[in-house]
Amino acid sequence: MTYQLWYWPGIPGRGEFVRLALEVGEIPYRDCAMETDDGADRLLADMERDRAHPPFAPPYLAADDLVIGQTANILLFLGERHDLAPRDISGRLWVHQVQLTIADIVVEAHDVHHPIASGLYYEDQKTEARRRAEDFRQNRIPKYLQYFNGILRNKDWLAGDEWSYADLSLFHLIEGLEHAFPRRMATVMAECPQLTRLREAVKAIAPLNHYLSSSRRQPFGNGIFRHYPELDGD
Amino acid sequence: MTYQLWYWPGIPGRGEFVRLALEVGEIPYRDCAMETDDGADRLLADMERDRAHPPFAPPYLAADDLVIGQTANILLFLGERHDLAPRDISGRLWVHQVQLTIADIVVEAHDVHHPIASGLYYEDQKTEARRRAEDFRQNRIPKYLQYFNGILRNKDWLAGDEWSYADLSLFHLIEGLEHAFPRRMATVMAECPQLTRLREAVKAIAPLNHYLSSSRRQPFGNGIFRHYPELDGD
Repeated sequence: MTYQLWYWPGIPGRGEFVRLALEVGEIPYRDCAMETDDGADRLLADMERDRAHPPFAPPYLAADDLVIGQTANILLFLGERHDLAPRDISGRLWVHQVQLTIADIVVEAHDVHHPIASGLYYEDQKTEARRRAEDFRQNRIPKYLQYFNGILRNKDWLAGDEWSYADLSLFHLIEGLEHAFPRRMATVMAECPQLTRLREAVKAIAPLNHYLSSSRRQPFGNGIFRHYPELDGD
Repeated sequence: MTYQLWYWPGIPGRGEFVRLALEVGEIPYRDCAMETDDGADRLLADMERDRAHPPFAPPYLAADDLVIGQTANILLFLGERHDLAPRDISGRLWVHQVQLTIADIVVEAHDVHHPIASGLYYEDQKTEARRRAEDFRQNRIPKYLQYFNGILRNKDWLAGDEWSYADLSLFHLIEGLEHAFPRRMATVMAECPQLTRLREAVKAIAPLNHYLSSSRRQPFGNGIFRHYPELDGD
């Protein structure tokens, strides 16, 4: 069976957290909205389909007769089905908990450049974005990253001896934050050696390494993690 | 076994979504930070404990040797352990997906009054809050509530024939939004008859009804759902 992933084409976005799990797990999937030039239109049309379990927003994953929405929920499913997370209840819930915490900072990273409304342009909320960015840089990035760094102090991976989908997501979070806030991240990462170690360890996973150098890995752009120099700082 | 719930005392907050599941499931629990006047200090001290699986923020639930953080993750656990959600994979993931979508609007409802920084006072971000509130009222509340209303068009409960923890959370979401935005909610709810029906159905669940009239149900205050008349509108 081949999964069908649906997500906005042209940006890594939240779909990327799912892609990384599929790629590293070497799980067959179609990235449906990336297959044709009218992918966004086809995604919108697919979203309109009458379903018992409609997704509120992309990404969602179609699998046999399941349609699963919410990034962390898709990963929970893939983790259980394809051994991308521990099987015991303690490890399974823990990995999901970390994933949900990553999801929290992802929302905040987005809202830095869209503090007023996701439906408005950045240019319409630049003043507010500067204020929010200052708090995000000074307070939120260190709080989250020191938390993740602390978890890894006595472990190779977030859940212990083996990588899980949350490690892949944490890798992508760090990449995204470095793209958006290179100056601030240079400062914060210097105090988070475990995160640097984790990032290198994730990069060394063979299928991921292969994926990162493929055309399937889309560059950051006008998505969640955006680089506006005026929002960055030491 | 008695669960230990830890959450900031004095507001319903995110802890309330967990409380409702525990109360309606008639599951024994201690609301630890509500037991003494220094509950907030004891919560902060408990958060500092050295743990393999530290929570990033309250609420968290201690159960035997498990400590589970993230509201939706706690509910996933309680749902599986205490039959507060369907057991089959489709229903289990669906209820969790709805819960995560509720969690998304909860973040937005909070950020209406704190669009710049959660660490600043509302008074320090009133101007930005007015702009964000306009978008939240006009675009976000209808988008989410019409989505939930649509799910319920052909079902008694979100997952079909029986209530699940997500129904309880949706009830609380509606109560919270009505507290914060009474004028706007009067307009939106008039077009969401299924949500009115669901709210009454949840209220009629005997243990919930009992809980709502008890002193354990805390009033809304300076938490997620805040009533600032200047942020409301038709």
